Amino acid sequence: MAVEWAGLTPEVLVQLDRGSSETLGSQLQNGLREAVRAGRLVKDERLPSSRKLAADLGVSRGLVQATYDQLEAEGYLRAVAGSATRVAFSAPKAAVSRTAPAAVPTPDIDFVPGRPDLNSFPARDWLWACGEATRTISARELGYGDGRGAVKLRAVVASYLQRVRGASAGPDDVVISTGFTQGTALTLAALRHSGVTMVAVEDPGHLEMPLLVRRAGLTPVFVPVDEQGLDIDRLARTSATAVIVTPAHQTPTGVVLSSDRRRALLQWAQRVGATVIEDDYDSEFRYDKQPVGSLQGLAADHVVLVGSVSKSLAPAIRLGWVLAPRQLAVRLAEEKQRSDRGSPTLDQLALARLIESGRFDRHLRRMRTTYAARRAALVDSIAEHAPSLELTGLAAGFHALAWLADGTDETAIINEAARRSIGLQGLGRYRSAPTRGPAGIVFGFGDLNENAIRRGIATVADLLN
Amino acid sequence: MAVEWAGLTPEVLVQLDRGSSETLGSQLQNGLREAVRAGRLVKDERLPSSRKLAADLGVSRGLVQATYDQLEAEGYLRAVAGSATRVAFSAPKAAVSRTAPAAVPTPDIDFVPGRPDLNSFPARDWLWACGEATRTISARELGYGDGRGAVKLRAVVASYLQRVRGASAGPDDVVISTGFTQGTALTLAALRHSGVTMVAVEDPGHLEMPLLVRRAGLTPVFVPVDEQGLDIDRLARTSATAVIVTPAHQTPTGVVLSSDRRRALLQWAQRVGATVIEDDYDSEFRYDKQPVGSLQGLAADHVVLVGSVSKSLAPAIRLGWVLAPRQLAVRLAEEKQRSDRGSPTLDQLALARLIESGRFDRHLRRMRTTYAARRAALVDSIAEHAPSLELTGLAAGFHALAWLADGTDETAIINEAARRSIGLQGLGRYRSAPTRGPAGIVFGFGDLNENAIRRGIATVADLLN
Repeated sequence: MAVEWAGLTPEVLVQLDRGSSETLGSQLQNGLREAVRAGRLVKDERLPSSRKLAADLGVSRGLVQATYDQLEAEGYLRAVAGSATRVAFSAPKAAVSRTAPAAVPTPDIDFVPGRPDLNSFPARDWLWACGEATRTISARELGYGDGRGAVKLRAVVASYLQRVRGASAGPDDVVISTGFTQGTALTLAALRHSGVTMVAVEDPGHLEMPLLVRRAGLTPVFVPVDEQGLDIDRLARTSATAVIVTPAHQTPTGVVLSSDRRRALLQWAQRVGATVIEDDYDSEFRYDKQPVGSLQGLAADHVVLVGSVSKSLAPAIRLGWVLAPRQLAVRLAEEKQRSDRGSPTLDQLALARLIESGRFDRHLRRMRTTYAARRAALVDSIAEHAPSLELTGLAAGFHALAWLADGTDETAIINEAARRSIGLQGLGRYRSAPTRGPAGIVFGFGDLNENAIRRGIATVADLLN
Repeated sequence: MAVEWAGLTPEVLVQLDRGSSETLGSQLQNGLREAVRAGRLVKDERLPSSRKLAADLGVSRGLVQATYDQLEAEGYLRAVAGSATRVAFSAPKAAVSRTAPAAVPTPDIDFVPGRPDLNSFPARDWLWACGEATRTISARELGYGDGRGAVKLRAVVASYLQRVRGASAGPDDVVISTGFTQGTALTLAALRHSGVTMVAVEDPGHLEMPLLVRRAGLTPVFVPVDEQGLDIDRLARTSATAVIVTPAHQTPTGVVLSSDRRRALLQWAQRVGATVIEDDYDSEFRYDKQPVGSLQGLAADHVVLVGSVSKSLAPAIRLGWVLAPRQLAVRLAEEKQRSDRGSPTLDQLALARLIESGRFDRHLRRMRTTYAARRAALVDSIAEHAPSLELTGLAAGFHALAWLADGTDETAIINEAARRSIGLQGLGRYRSAPTRGPAGIVFGFGDLNENAIRRGIATVADLLN
């Protein structure tokens, strides 16, 4: 329905600010667009002539005419030869803004696992590495890159993993990812392509694993973990032809996969032709002795090693790696290319420089001292305040599992702790069936200083008594 | 089968380099691991006693024993109480290395479309922005972030797109991606979730579009493009409930979607409840006048705007954005979170600073001058050397379409050009059926200087005659 120009005066329709850095033309365009969008101008409504609007706003007629032309080209206005310019389009009513979700209060002391000490991020070293990368990158490298990642970083990662993780790798076996989640998702997609349908996961284990398996269109199979790690006899009785394990430091129990189990796992993989996905997430951090080398080094044709710098540097860097048997690596690179056309090249070159220069190792040494002290504070304050809690697992990483005394209600403890502003995670959230098996608390201590750890444990001890 | 220690002397088994920065213990471990992997030590073979190996290698017995313990924990060796240490595992034969694919020769002058001038990457500005980001990032921001992206960048992008593209956006409507491919893939995944099954694409158009549609588990429907852009009447006759379009500068024809078609497209979207995915890939670059504003600004409830800095800065940066109706944006953020847990935060904050500081705009102004001169060189040298080629499309972006005279064999021209080391792309590779419709060449000129453009066109003219 056509209506005549009415109601709104041009000054109300569009407000021009002569003190703004935005040009008058741009202000006029945006003002008119906004008036259409907001429904202040409706379809078929006649606009003032360019002469009138120019006079009212105190701008040139050419400016108004150029604005009308522009908005006509964009579909907001319609010019009919010999007639007035009209509004061409009624914008639909804007969707109502969703109300923001209620903020979840952050606990004063949060024992959330898997969070490194972000205050210790080596910002100066990282910036130095970015500078090196930016100064030396070639024009060619600024284009779309190899789906596997920058060759420089792949070579540095291969040599790093050989040196530090006893891995068996060359640059062509490495695919750079954004971290563990993407690395594993790409691996699962590649495995699905090669005919895998069922993937075993650890129980208890990180619940992200079965989610990742399902999202890849595969079926997760839960296999129990005991004090020696994953139960390989039980694994062998499933129909799974792939498994995700945390051999160096099991999540959440903290045990290391025993030497017998490692052999049995690899013999199963060879016998069945299965693939072992080795989640190597916090292997950089062991405090009592050298970490156990990777499974991958022992059976490079059957093991995919997935790692990242999310725990060693910071999650915000979004870089990780997958070390895979050659043919799987080729397929993985295709999946990576399709997913996001490769990770940022400057970041990749920066990480390569950081590792190559020794600054990465220096940071890790510093962090091992920090985390070892935090773990000691946890162990000491549990011994002092809550001797009924039985800690298990290696002196490694930045989480530890404490078993609760028989009959203790895990959920009640967690809820009561939350009321006292202490964040705790129960073992139940790592189990396929939350109530099966003994109760426990998974204490993360990566992002808490020793003082906070002691105060937190004292409070937890108080509510256990 | 158990074999006794034989053949290899310890010095051949493991070579220690006392001048190396690697510790002797690490060398010994890596040497033994490698011997197992390479099959120089086989399953059940007995190792020399720690006393004997220590004496032969001239190291302490403790060092050898610690190495045996470590490799036992890792599953390479097996210690039996009161007996010798034996090899526990035979590594499978290593897979044969694939031979590298034969290198494709790079043409001397490559008119490949879609490649910006990578020599003009503003390295100094980018590094400045990285410095600002690294210095100001908080510990919290170094953790896992919001799946939508850093709020700072979302706010800066929303305001940038309002200012430059006439878009209608707030920070909550923006999801940060790694570029066009991921942004579109996430959008398609979200649309599939909301029930979309068929997605229209432009024909001719970029062949990545139907690929992306198929990979998302959806069906592409080809809709013809003419001199006014996408044919909306034909679109309306399909069953598609989504469409991917390049309204500001069609790929590959270079036309702008006419004002009537824009209205018709949005009316179709409102009538059918369809979603328009607006590929805004080179809208920053128009040389004759202000670019046409985005469709998204006119119908924010029906249009998803997808953009990136791959053309404006460099593909290696891997940052882009999706501007989507609120509910779709929520779903998109979930898809992004699942795919890679968000883009690198430091890069996001650097891009926000680059835009905010005006350095991004300054770079774009400089590049507009550069590309306009290159386009002029293309137009001039075609007029001079190959007047039979008819150029179409806007003075925009960094590609232009030249129609070939009736009856010209597009493929023959391209092959002959390749023999003269000139890279050309035919219109055929943008069509659903390569031989349908008149022949043409898509000239990309973003990464070629004026001299190269003139020499290239002279050669092409030579082989057209």
